[in-house]
Amino acid sequence: MSHQSVIHLSLGSPTHAICVVGMEVCLDFSGCAPQKCTSFTISGSPGVLVDIHDTVLDITNEETATIQLPLSDPLDVLVTMMSPSSAIDGDKVSVSFYQPDEEVPVATAELYLTGIAVSLDADLFRSGQVEVASDKQAKKNWVWGPRGWGAILLVNCSPADVGQLADKTKKVFFTEEIKNLSQMVLDVQGPSCVLKNHRLVLHTSKEESEKARVYRAHEDGSSTFELVLGPGRHTYDFAPLESHLNETFYVEATEFPSASFSGLIFYSVSLVEESQDPSIPETLVYKDTVVFRVAPCIFTPSTQMPLEVYLCRELQVQGFVSAVMELSERSNSQVASVYEDPNRLGRWLQDEMAFCYTQAPHKTVSLVLDTPRVLKLEDFPMKYSLSPGVGYVIQGTKDHRVASMDSIGNLMVSPPVKIKGKEYPLGRILIGSSFYPSKEGRDMSKALRDFLYAQRVQAPVELFSDWLTTGHVDEFMCFVPTQVKSEDEKGFRLLLASPSACYKLFQEKQKGGYGDMPLFEEVREDQRHSNGREAKTINQVLADENMRKQNDYVEKCINLNRDVLKRELGLVERDIVDIPQLFCLEQLTNVPSSQQTKKLYARPYFPNLLQVTVMGKDLGIPKPFGPQVKGTCCLEEKVCQLLEPLGFKCTFINDFDCYLTEIGDFCACANIRRVPFAYKWWKMVP
Amino acid sequence: MSHQSVIHLSLGSPTHAICVVGMEVCLDFSGCAPQKCTSFTISGSPGVLVDIHDTVLDITNEETATIQLPLSDPLDVLVTMMSPSSAIDGDKVSVSFYQPDEEVPVATAELYLTGIAVSLDADLFRSGQVEVASDKQAKKNWVWGPRGWGAILLVNCSPADVGQLADKTKKVFFTEEIKNLSQMVLDVQGPSCVLKNHRLVLHTSKEESEKARVYRAHEDGSSTFELVLGPGRHTYDFAPLESHLNETFYVEATEFPSASFSGLIFYSVSLVEESQDPSIPETLVYKDTVVFRVAPCIFTPSTQMPLEVYLCRELQVQGFVSAVMELSERSNSQVASVYEDPNRLGRWLQDEMAFCYTQAPHKTVSLVLDTPRVLKLEDFPMKYSLSPGVGYVIQGTKDHRVASMDSIGNLMVSPPVKIKGKEYPLGRILIGSSFYPSKEGRDMSKALRDFLYAQRVQAPVELFSDWLTTGHVDEFMCFVPTQVKSEDEKGFRLLLASPSACYKLFQEKQKGGYGDMPLFEEVREDQRHSNGREAKTINQVLADENMRKQNDYVEKCINLNRDVLKRELGLVERDIVDIPQLFCLEQLTNVPSSQQTKKLYARPYFPNLLQVTVMGKDLGIPKPFGPQVKGTCCLEEKVCQLLEPLGFKCTFINDFDCYLTEIGDFCACANIRRVPFAYKWWKMVP
Repeated sequence: MSHQSVIHLSLGSPTHAICVVGMEVCLDFSGCAPQKCTSFTISGSPGVLVDIHDTVLDITNEETATIQLPLSDPLDVLVTMMSPSSAIDGDKVSVSFYQPDEEVPVATAELYLTGIAVSLDADLFRSGQVEVASDKQAKKNWVWGPRGWGAILLVNCSPADVGQLADKTKKVFFTEEIKNLSQMVLDVQGPSCVLKNHRLVLHTSKEESEKARVYRAHEDGSSTFELVLGPGRHTYDFAPLESHLNETFYVEATEFPSASFSGLIFYSVSLVEESQDPSIPETLVYKDTVVFRVAPCIFTPSTQMPLEVYLCRELQVQGFVSAVMELSERSNSQVASVYEDPNRLGRWLQDEMAFCYTQAPHKTVSLVLDTPRVLKLEDFPMKYSLSPGVGYVIQGTKDHRVASMDSIGNLMVSPPVKIKGKEYPLGRILIGSSFYPSKEGRDMSKALRDFLYAQRVQAPVELFSDWLTTGHVDEFMCFVPTQVKSEDEKGFRLLLASPSACYKLFQEKQKGGYGDMPLFEEVREDQRHSNGREAKTINQVLADENMRKQNDYVEKCINLNRDVLKRELGLVERDIVDIPQLFCLEQLTNVPSSQQTKKLYARPYFPNLLQVTVMGKDLGIPKPFGPQVKGTCCLEEKVCQLLEPLGFKCTFINDFDCYLTEIGDFCACANIRRVPFAYKWWKMVP
Repeated sequence: MSHQSVIHLSLGSPTHAICVVGMEVCLDFSGCAPQKCTSFTISGSPGVLVDIHDTVLDITNEETATIQLPLSDPLDVLVTMMSPSSAIDGDKVSVSFYQPDEEVPVATAELYLTGIAVSLDADLFRSGQVEVASDKQAKKNWVWGPRGWGAILLVNCSPADVGQLADKTKKVFFTEEIKNLSQMVLDVQGPSCVLKNHRLVLHTSKEESEKARVYRAHEDGSSTFELVLGPGRHTYDFAPLESHLNETFYVEATEFPSASFSGLIFYSVSLVEESQDPSIPETLVYKDTVVFRVAPCIFTPSTQMPLEVYLCRELQVQGFVSAVMELSERSNSQVASVYEDPNRLGRWLQDEMAFCYTQAPHKTVSLVLDTPRVLKLEDFPMKYSLSPGVGYVIQGTKDHRVASMDSIGNLMVSPPVKIKGKEYPLGRILIGSSFYPSKEGRDMSKALRDFLYAQRVQAPVELFSDWLTTGHVDEFMCFVPTQVKSEDEKGFRLLLASPSACYKLFQEKQKGGYGDMPLFEEVREDQRHSNGREAKTINQVLADENMRKQNDYVEKCINLNRDVLKRELGLVERDIVDIPQLFCLEQLTNVPSSQQTKKLYARPYFPNLLQVTVMGKDLGIPKPFGPQVKGTCCLEEKVCQLLEPLGFKCTFINDFDCYLTEIGDFCACANIRRVPFAYKWWKMVP
């Protein structure tokens, strides 16, 4: 007696078979119907479902059981057991054969069934609860979209686990921690005398076992968990089966999807019938498989509300720090202090790490994705500064150079957009690049780019940013959130740096008789001097042919991006606000001399009005120290004219040194954790 | 004057701009309309398209040009040039402004346009011809399906190129060879005085450059081609532009898609404006990108008609060779002779190579995919045996062991199937595996499995074949083509080995009084002996309890596969034909002693009726040498009873040694190249 996919009935003696609950078995009584018989009836015990030519019959119903069915050819009689049997031969199906126009059967074939249940289940329907799937095939597929299904794993982002060796066979989980893990339930039921001839194996592939860990709780109910599958362990043999088994496993991923890892992890349980005869090999009775997808790392655009501001309180930028703290209070977001990390040359917060989140139906986890410049650090101070519940993950990148574009700081995210019918409900990642190859071209490292593409839910767009000293897109663009008043509005504006808007403004002011007003009037001479700036007047700026050429070049570079952004984000001109900003071209200074080139790169001429600290409607904008017109900086006035009608409150942050220094931009010493999207990533189709 | 995405008009002096043909440019006349003006008219030269609020206007039409349009806010006026200008400032747009109820304009703003065309095109619409796409964005995407688009590359399968170093900068192509390459056309047009300030770069990424080669024809019209892009060369700088440029490139891929290669290759041409001032960097004017997908390697099921039979004419299997040649003649397919390759231990033809094809709209190429056991051979004799036009590609696999499942022979393809609405118009690849992990488990190598999955168009199904000595699925199953007479028929039958059908047959014959008839009666004793077989009678076979147990085990293994096949190929019982076949369990013999295990594996007891040489309706079936009943082998009679009503002609191949030998199955010394599917792979959605 064993599991069969086709059961041949006979009249002589009853047939016995084991059926796995939920699996269709075909009944064959072709060789068994007596001659001249043309019809049959079929009856059976509860929990046995019969399907004849796609019609499901309730064979426990007495009336149904008396309906004579034609013995046509071919005859597809499928039997499915709906629940395990309580004893061996605990269920039964009888088939009676009739001659034409007779009401008494000529013969009856009997089939005794023993149902056993083997099921490996997870949160298939993304409800946050493990559910036993009636369709055993569905569990093997992971389907994107609003009508999709498939369970989800979270990457272990616990700061405490970073850098820890993970090949321990036991681990203590706190109650809160275990809630991050996805549950997987194994259920085996059936008569003990049948089960005891079987063994169970839980398994995955060697490659997949490296990407996730499966734990089981200790029997003593303690918080210590036993590692069942994980790196170096792709199979787990259960103790010999004695009776029912119902066990919950806890699963966590160890890495996010990447170029070499799709994010899918399959777990299977195999029920193996042990052979009673040593010369006959064991046989697999049934294999049940469930697939998980590792949740992607999702980045939040500046249009999402702030939750927490991480600030590196450097004394040099006290003006910036105070202003950001005030803005945080106004937008009800917390401020967390972090301390300077000597390994990161002070500028680490925004350049080398990004706040993001990962999400499963049962849990959402905020985390810092750190792409440290120094890869062999033994410890990362940042992880000790994080609020409870905020995760920390290190993503190695190669070829880390100072001022290179190979850093997470060179990435921005758009708000949700829709382009020609294609929706990006979580926005699109914007990566700065060199756009076309040249001798000096700088690009984000392939590893980091591939990582961003592999997350799939925020399809990246490449922008041209290699014309900037930093190479970072946040120097010429910024997204700010607006209220949606009509259908064709998008809920945001894109601020773009515009040298021509600045020239136009200065020309107007010159015409108005303010040509003699200087820039940087309020900046101390030593500050100006150390940053290579002079107190030029509007007339001098407008007369500077070289500066004009440089800004024409910058304008072209930004225009290229304007084209790409309009096309790839589906923007129209009215979604864009041109912010007056001048640039100047300089040689790269903060790179080793071996990387020096003749090519000049653009830096903001005055503190960059585009490097906005966005806290909802409150905008922290670098004070530009522009020419005063009637006692007001004309740049500030222009920016307010552009943004206040959209409902924004502009605060100009008075900290020249924070924004213009020889060694880079100190504004990177703040980093904002924001509210995750309300939209669930698994509901989209990438 | 340069390319701009927004052109600001002014009343004072005409504006000048360069426009790339096909690119939308936004006209901004917000700051230019005189006060009190409330409407405007717009006119222009032919070849300039104006789009106002999603309405396209023919501004060359005199009537249209007199229609006054409201100066509403916001105003989206988009200008697109449809053709390049013949001279600098060769095209023009005028905007005239009107006060309310006036017919004479107050003022007119003029815009002089110079249109330049930059286009990199390929066979976007899969017609076999390069077509210039009007939608420049579409070229960057590759879309599957009947309404999809995107150009296709073929892998260079030329036998002559196998093992040749490919870093040559020049290559001679024969007329026929060059037809395999995909064309890519670069077209640059515009006034010479504008073009000469620009340079052109053709480029791809470093990673993609390793996967394909781009050639250009020599100017002398010879058959020598210059390598433009390829391994180690990811950019190509053109000579300075002087006037129009129209050049055709020829592109070939160097490898099929794999786990680490999606198959997509992007080529871009960048038009770069050189700076006249050394202190200002050059600027990218426009980048045009086209994407190709490398065509997958497609395997053909045995239900496709044979084209050519490759036969290794070993003397030992003359019976087999003669029979196959006869069958070939009957089905009008050619026979090609190949000679034994000492490196492959004689059994190489079917075990280590598979005939497949690859296809682009412009060409279909048959090829041998060779997964040689010996990787460091300097030359592969097989490639010299191929008919002209048949390609040859080596796919490295690791861990090649004798009798392992890491060989292309362990793969079969199903005919086209449909499962619950999901269509597989090119069938599904069937891979033999161990199904669940165990100490002795043997599986196809990850590299080969990943390769098969990466082709995407024949989504693989894993079957359980590790119970067989060879581990090859073709030992228990075979697809044969049938005529489709009604809608619910599938056009094929699956033949499955069935020990129980054989026992049933023998029992019937025993009842009929033929229990004394022996197997292998016609086989010489020394042949029987050397293959470990005795001339047992039906009675003896039926009385052999050990053999019964072994075949019960085999039946279970096949039943597991029956379940999987029904589920994954959408089969029902009437699609399956049970072919009587007995097996016996033996230790692995043809493996090194270090790989010897105690586990026993199944081998056919008599020549395997499932190893059918399928030539359309003509089936070459191993002669089983079964018990004679009334002068006819009862196994042959049964097989004919099952298959002849389906329209098949069964030829039993009388060659015991070919099918049952200690060192494996000689039937692998034939390999059949078959007709490609009529269905084009790019029309499916994987």
